[in-house]
Amino acid sequence: MSQSPKQSAGRTVPTSADVARLAGVSRATVSYVLNNTAAVRISEPTRRRVREAAEELGYVPHAAARSLRAGHSRMVLLPTAHVPIGPLYSRFFNDLQWALRRLDYTVVQYGSVGLDPDEAARAWAELRPVAVVSLGQVELTPQGVELLKRSGAKAVITVGPQRVEGTHALVMDQAQVGRAAGAHLVERGCRTIGVVMPEEPGLEMFSVPRLAGVRAAAEAAGAEVLPLPLRYEEEPAGALAGRWRELGLDGVFAYNDEYAMLLMRALQDAGIAIPGETAVVGSDDLVIGRLLRPRLSTVHIDMVMGRELAELVDRVVRDPESAPERQELLDSRVVRRESS
Amino acid sequence: MSQSPKQSAGRTVPTSADVARLAGVSRATVSYVLNNTAAVRISEPTRRRVREAAEELGYVPHAAARSLRAGHSRMVLLPTAHVPIGPLYSRFFNDLQWALRRLDYTVVQYGSVGLDPDEAARAWAELRPVAVVSLGQVELTPQGVELLKRSGAKAVITVGPQRVEGTHALVMDQAQVGRAAGAHLVERGCRTIGVVMPEEPGLEMFSVPRLAGVRAAAEAAGAEVLPLPLRYEEEPAGALAGRWRELGLDGVFAYNDEYAMLLMRALQDAGIAIPGETAVVGSDDLVIGRLLRPRLSTVHIDMVMGRELAELVDRVVRDPESAPERQELLDSRVVRRESS
Repeated sequence: MSQSPKQSAGRTVPTSADVARLAGVSRATVSYVLNNTAAVRISEPTRRRVREAAEELGYVPHAAARSLRAGHSRMVLLPTAHVPIGPLYSRFFNDLQWALRRLDYTVVQYGSVGLDPDEAARAWAELRPVAVVSLGQVELTPQGVELLKRSGAKAVITVGPQRVEGTHALVMDQAQVGRAAGAHLVERGCRTIGVVMPEEPGLEMFSVPRLAGVRAAAEAAGAEVLPLPLRYEEEPAGALAGRWRELGLDGVFAYNDEYAMLLMRALQDAGIAIPGETAVVGSDDLVIGRLLRPRLSTVHIDMVMGRELAELVDRVVRDPESAPERQELLDSRVVRRESS
Repeated sequence: MSQSPKQSAGRTVPTSADVARLAGVSRATVSYVLNNTAAVRISEPTRRRVREAAEELGYVPHAAARSLRAGHSRMVLLPTAHVPIGPLYSRFFNDLQWALRRLDYTVVQYGSVGLDPDEAARAWAELRPVAVVSLGQVELTPQGVELLKRSGAKAVITVGPQRVEGTHALVMDQAQVGRAAGAHLVERGCRTIGVVMPEEPGLEMFSVPRLAGVRAAAEAAGAEVLPLPLRYEEEPAGALAGRWRELGLDGVFAYNDEYAMLLMRALQDAGIAIPGETAVVGSDDLVIGRLLRPRLSTVHIDMVMGRELAELVDRVVRDPESAPERQELLDSRVVRRESS
C-alpha cells in the first residue's frame, strides 16, 4: 500500500517511509521495530536508530493503515450509553479497558445511545473493529451481527437475556439481584412486596429481570408481588406514598439505593414507619445508604473482573469459531442494616 | 490505494471494488453515492443500483480507508475518564456526540484515565483523528499537541485553566461556582467558611478553582476561608464534624450535593444545627438535595449546549489557523433552600 504525505495546517504528516529513509533501513524494519514484533531478529543498534528517527520526525504508527496492511485491526469497540453511571460500572469499565490494552488492543468507545440496532451495527462496522463488546446498550439483531462479521469483526460479545445468532453471549443475571432482595424480605416476614420499576428509559434491562427475581423468591414462599412504576422525582414518590396503606405493602425492593432514598423520604413524610410498617431494601451498596436513617439495607453487587472479560475477548478473536461460553458477570448478596 | 479482500472467519470482506463490479459502475461512482457527495451529478437509477449492490454484498464504507484516500479523517476523538458521572455531564456528552454526527463526523471516545499526557497524545495520534476535544481528563503538553498536529489533527480543543500552545482553549469557569456559593454564604452572615476538597483523584480540576472562587467572594467581604480535605466516606466525615466547633466554622461550601449529604449527616450526628450553627451549600442541584432535611441549598449549573461546541469543532477543522475563541462552558446560580 502506498501512502502519500498528508497535509495538515501546512505540515507534512511523517510516514514510516520517512522514518526508514532517515534511519537507513527498510520500511518493513521500521514496522517490525515500532510494532515490537518479537518474531523478527533485529539488532539493538538498528532498533535504536529506528526509534530515534521516529522520535525526531514525530512519527506515530497509523492504527488504521497498519490494520489495512495486516488485513485485520486490533480495535475493540465498546458501545457506550452516556447515562449517569455509578462507581460499580466505572470501575469495571476502566478495568476492562486497561486489560485489553495490556493485550495490545486499541480500545475505543462509541456513544450509541439513540441509535437503532441496525444503524448502530453499521456505524460500528465503518470503524472495522476486530471485536465488539456490547454491555446491553444496543440490542443487536442477527443482520447487524452478520454485517459486523462481514466487516471483519471476529468477536461480537453481547450481554443480555437472549442470545443473538453469531454472538458470544455473557450472562449478567440481574434476576439474582431481585432474588436476593425478595428472599430477604420474605425472611423478614413480608407478605405483600412492592418492586420499584423506574420509568426512566434505558433501565428496563435491569428492572425487568430484577422484578422476575423478586417474584420467583416471593412466590416460592406464597407472598404477593406488586410492580410500582416510579419516576425519580419527589412528586410521584409522594403520590405513591399516599397510596401505600391502601396497597397493603409491608415490604419493598426499591430498585437501587437512590430510588430507595427517594421512596424512604416520601414514606417517612407520609408517616409510615420503616422498618416497622414497611421494610425497604435497595441495591448497589452506595455510601448514601449508610447516611440514611434508618440505615438502608441493600443488595451488594460484585461484578466480574474486567480482566477476565478481556481474556475472553482475546480468546474469541484468536478462535472465532470456538463454542460460546457461559460466563456470569455478577454476584450479589444482601447487606442487612436498619431498614428491613 | 489498492485494497485486497480481507479474510475473516472464512468470509471475504466485500470492498467498494466488489460493489462497483456488481453495479457495473466505477469505484469513484460507488464512493460518490455511498458518501452522499452532493457536488457530483449522478442519476437516481445509478444511485439506486449502487445502493442495492452495496446492500446485497453487505458492504459498509471503511472509515479509515476513506480517510487514507482523502488524506484526512472525519474522526473526532473525545478522551473520557470513566469516573462516575452525573446527569449534567451525561446530557452534555450525548448532545455533543449527536451534534458532531449531524455534521458528518465519526465520534469515538478514548478512555484515557491513568495515561500520562504524552502517552495519551501518542495513543490518540495512532487513530489519526481530525479533532480532539479534551474536557480536562488529561492535561496536554505542547509536545503532545505538536504530535497530534503532525499526525493530522486540525483541531485540538481543550478545556482548562491554562492554555496550551497550539490548542483552542475553552473556559469552564469552575471558579464562578465557588464565587456564587461564597457570595451567598457571606450574604447569610457567615464569617468563617469551610470549603470541602474531595481527596478522590481526578476532581482537582473542579475543586481547586471552586476554592479560589469562594476565596475571592469571601475575602471581598472580609470573611475567612478554610479548605477541608475529605474522602467520600463516613469515618473521615465524622472526624471532621468532631473538630467543627474547634475550627469555628459557621458556613461551608461542600463541593457538591453528594459531599453535602455526607457532611450534613456527620454534622447532625455531632449535634450541630443546620443552618442555625452552620450553613451548608452544595452544587449540581441533584434530586437528593431536595430529599435532605433541612432541604439543601445548592449551586445550579447550566452547561453550554453540546451543539455549540460541535460547531466550534467544525469551524476550527475547516480553518485551523483561526484565532482562538473564548467560550464559556457554564453558567451558575444559587438555589436557596433550608440549609443556609
